[in-house]
Amino acid sequence: MAIVLGPNQYGKAENRLVTVSRNGSVHTIKDLTVSTSLRGDLAATHLTGDNSAVLATDTQKNTVYAFAKEAPVGEIEDFALRLGRHFVSTQEAISGARILIDEHSWDRIDGHDHSFVKASDEKRTTAVTIEGDKAWVVSGVKDVVVLKSTGSEFHGYPKDPYTTLKETNDRILATSVTARWRYIGTDVDWGKSFTSIRSTMLKTFADKHSLSLQQTLYAMGEAVLQSRADVAEVRLSMPNKHHFLVDLSAFGLQNDNEVFYAADRPYGLIEGTVLRDDAEEAGSAWYSLPAF
Amino acid sequence: MAIVLGPNQYGKAENRLVTVSRNGSVHTIKDLTVSTSLRGDLAATHLTGDNSAVLATDTQKNTVYAFAKEAPVGEIEDFALRLGRHFVSTQEAISGARILIDEHSWDRIDGHDHSFVKASDEKRTTAVTIEGDKAWVVSGVKDVVVLKSTGSEFHGYPKDPYTTLKETNDRILATSVTARWRYIGTDVDWGKSFTSIRSTMLKTFADKHSLSLQQTLYAMGEAVLQSRADVAEVRLSMPNKHHFLVDLSAFGLQNDNEVFYAADRPYGLIEGTVLRDDAEEAGSAWYSLPAF
Amino acid sequence: MAIVLGPNQYGKAENRLVTVSRNGSVHTIKDLTVSTSLRGDLAATHLTGDNSAVLATDTQKNTVYAFAKEAPVGEIEDFALRLGRHFVSTQEAISGARILIDEHSWDRIDGHDHSFVKASDEKRTTAVTIEGDKAWVVSGVKDVVVLKSTGSEFHGYPKDPYTTLKETNDRILATSVTARWRYIGTDVDWGKSFTSIRSTMLKTFADKHSLSLQQTLYAMGEAVLQSRADVAEVRLSMPNKHHFLVDLSAFGLQNDNEVFYAADRPYGLIEGTVLRDDAEEAGSAWYSLPAF
Amino acid sequence: MAIVLGPNQYGKAENRLVTVSRNGSVHTIKDLTVSTSLRGDLAATHLTGDNSAVLATDTQKNTVYAFAKEAPVGEIEDFALRLGRHFVSTQEAISGARILIDEHSWDRIDGHDHSFVKASDEKRTTAVTIEGDKAWVVSGVKDVVVLKSTGSEFHGYPKDPYTTLKETNDRILATSVTARWRYIGTDVDWGKSFTSIRSTMLKTFADKHSLSLQQTLYAMGEAVLQSRADVAEVRLSMPNKHHFLVDLSAFGLQNDNEVFYAADRPYGLIEGTVLRDDAEEAGSAWYSLPAF
Repeated sequence: MAIVLGPNQYGKAENRLVTVSRNGSVHTIKDLTVSTSLRGDLAATHLTGDNSAVLATDTQKNTVYAFAKEAPVGEIEDFALRLGRHFVSTQEAISGARILIDEHSWDRIDGHDHSFVKASDEKRTTAVTIEGDKAWVVSGVKDVVVLKSTGSEFHGYPKDPYTTLKETNDRILATSVTARWRYIGTDVDWGKSFTSIRSTMLKTFADKHSLSLQQTLYAMGEAVLQSRADVAEVRLSMPNKHHFLVDLSAFGLQNDNEVFYAADRPYGLIEGTVLRDDAEEAGSAWYSLPAF
Repeated sequence: MAIVLGPNQYGKAENRLVTVSRNGSVHTIKDLTVSTSLRGDLAATHLTGDNSAVLATDTQKNTVYAFAKEAPVGEIEDFALRLGRHFVSTQEAISGARILIDEHSWDRIDGHDHSFVKASDEKRTTAVTIEGDKAWVVSGVKDVVVLKSTGSEFHGYPKDPYTTLKETNDRILATSVTARWRYIGTDVDWGKSFTSIRSTMLKTFADKHSLSLQQTLYAMGEAVLQSRADVAEVRLSMPNKHHFLVDLSAFGLQNDNEVFYAADRPYGLIEGTVLRDDAEEAGSAWYSLPAF
Repeated sequence: MAIVLGPNQYGKAENRLVTVSRNGSVHTIKDLTVSTSLRGDLAATHLTGDNSAVLATDTQKNTVYAFAKEAPVGEIEDFALRLGRHFVSTQEAISGARILIDEHSWDRIDGHDHSFVKASDEKRTTAVTIEGDKAWVVSGVKDVVVLKSTGSEFHGYPKDPYTTLKETNDRILATSVTARWRYIGTDVDWGKSFTSIRSTMLKTFADKHSLSLQQTLYAMGEAVLQSRADVAEVRLSMPNKHHFLVDLSAFGLQNDNEVFYAADRPYGLIEGTVLRDDAEEAGSAWYSLPAF
Repeated sequence: MAIVLGPNQYGKAENRLVTVSRNGSVHTIKDLTVSTSLRGDLAATHLTGDNSAVLATDTQKNTVYAFAKEAPVGEIEDFALRLGRHFVSTQEAISGARILIDEHSWDRIDGHDHSFVKASDEKRTTAVTIEGDKAWVVSGVKDVVVLKSTGSEFHGYPKDPYTTLKETNDRILATSVTARWRYIGTDVDWGKSFTSIRSTMLKTFADKHSLSLQQTLYAMGEAVLQSRADVAEVRLSMPNKHHFLVDLSAFGLQNDNEVFYAADRPYGLIEGTVLRDDAEEAGSAWYSLPAF
């Protein structure tokens, strides 16, 4: 028996990058949180502290900022691919890279040239994996909080000795969507695809009459795959943000789905995958990402 | 010498209230966080544990939910006035109430009847104080994050032995605005006033060429007072969310206000009050609120 | 009528300062979060952007770090006094300063010379105010989370039409204590006084049979004043962190104060002041601090 | 081509459970956050909203509280095994369960019978997976924040065109340890093993002279495996919480590793696995856990 080093990676997490580009007096900003991590022949630093293969995380940070100047950042998928390929191609010991980017969104203040107000807390995300010459792109969205005030039921579930929940034909359904989708290839119009996928998911959430949050989750993933040939797989994590009908009967009041208590914890948590049965293997696309 | 009880209050904080109202198939939601606190002749519970004057905080919570059913919630200022006046008028020992409400905003999903997506993290706020027959309303906004990518300078400050900051004629100016304004009286069109004030503050932030964040803060408060006769005073707290120009010279790159590092801590913090010199006294309007 | 500038202040918030001092091979660390703010004749920057009186917040930050090197930091009250007096005495336009310091605590790892593990999330705090030659010290503690599993009752409260809470002779009482106490003068053994006050408050929380959280709050403040002649006043803010007895009767189980659900929101919030009736006036000691 | 449902799970997350047990007048509390999730033949609810296999998450919550009454909670691993096996054995459609528990720690106030103060923010954790008759236990610790003020170097790393970091023979090393270890079998003295592993990791962090955080990470995992025959594998995630030496030279001061700025973001992130090369396969032990 021996004790050995298993899978490992290291990098610089949460580099906050804001860029300004100008078209005459009209400015455009990009607001990103970039995390880089590298993999490869890193046994020496773990076993003896020999750092000859360890490109410093400080250097990784510098590279993020320098690359943002050397060429326009563009779509986050392209920027991540550029960074990941750079690390793998220039560092002999480094065989793989994982670049995570969250994009934060801003609105213009009344069409003003150079003044902005933070939009919702939603983030557009990407997780790019490079292994030698190969590349995988898993993009997504997180913190998309949605609610429908009707059009959601929940009944027909098993009753065991610990069941007290009452069945309902009309409830509030609310969740905070985290979705990740795996692209087929890297020749994609990233921005257009993102806009389309986000819109499809929101529309499906709104339109689908829901008998369970699982059904809504599946419908959202299915709609993405039906509309986007460039996507192989969608993984969704959707907490059930409970809105409990307040019992007002003690006060002589009938609460006809009008007054709700929005609870914090605990919450339901529904997680699932929707995929094409003939999609190519995921390879390392999901390695070290959350399962859902 | 004696040890005595000084000012005190108690209540139920952060009641999460969501209401649904219907106009045919079209639903409207309100999403509020409501905190109530009561003041009065409360010495007994402090000194001996005699609770005969202590309307339970659980009862206060119930009242919030019941009142949301008994009549439409309406504007948060009106709902807060209704709650505060109720507690003071029905509980003999209670002479004062402070109601705090944050309103969270949602957008419709593509004009859908009953489906919504969370808008920005901004909150519309109110702090209503009742003392016997008197009432004060201090409304506001918080977590309004704004940024201008040019039109901001900072120079001419004193240089002491600990000064290393370089003067600049062009920087990013970013802040998260917390503003509270004291209304004159309670006969106000709350919703219209709020919309107007928020818009005025954003427009001033955008348009005012800034030589210091203090100048911007004052201009924002001044613009509100100039445009709204119903406001006596504005208090603003504005952290300077530093965006540092990244020094790329080591890499042979010139950074012409294009690439920035958005820092978390420390941050500048600018706080101030703008008011009418002939405004009526604030009385208890600000009691136990943050100073800025 | 004119629009005028009211009270204001500015500074650098949340400077994260860690110092290491050595006694042979034995190291001692101090981990502080320091916020500085200055007040004075600051109308020019607000009205015209003339910054000739505005010692840059960046300079304030530098001063914090330089002062930590120029002499040992010592007790946080002394460090805050040193910083505040420096700003007021060296900047002509600056007449007042407010220095806030939170001290984070660490334990040694098994008595090791230079290795430490973070202790609880409690912070020792101070808020020092300088106005010309005058100084006030308000110290405290925050995030001290305490719980007693019996020895707490709640009954005898008014029943109004919205009351549904059941009276209890035995409940869990849990809170997160934020306390601030105003010292008489500045000639105090800060460290010894802090240790004694914290210990007195915890002991009182534990020993006092509680008929209301208000009674516990008052007893804690009273015990501090009885034991410390150097303290004029104590302000406490104590959320009632509800632990609800879970109703297990549907499962044929009797819950004899054994199984609880720890709730997040809403929570009771009890706030109050205990003071000596002959204490000197508070002056500016509390200016711009939270009321409780 | 068809669109199909892939891996999925659902459950109730973050049930906050506090229990009180009594030995005469001496009380003991346990403070847990329990998350349950179930897997199995759940296609129907996803595809058609047929919930006949979906044990409601509300029922799962009730089960957690009822089980805490039916028998003493005991060690978190045993409680998780008990819950997981219950769900799998009683629900025909459910073939697997994942139970996550975090245990929060409290100290007695001065040896008091029934009064407690919250200890550090560290959590003892477990993740138990049940699949039919099989069970895996992965326990761990998180939010263990440690710092050494010397005994850490970093040099010998590659210099590329984006490298500006200076080599150092003496730096502060600080991190927040998240560790998970996979047990061999389920016949383990969980409490004793946990105490021993935590202590071994802290001692190794303290004693190991560090040439890189990777070396420290590996040494910590190796020491656990050397001392505990019941552990097959250790996964560690250790952010490098940077403490930057402040450059005070502009003020004529030499900073001899005395004054540091503790930074928030970005941070290094070092993640790795240490394992026995002859350990049995991990099976589903890590399924849907973070990779590190």
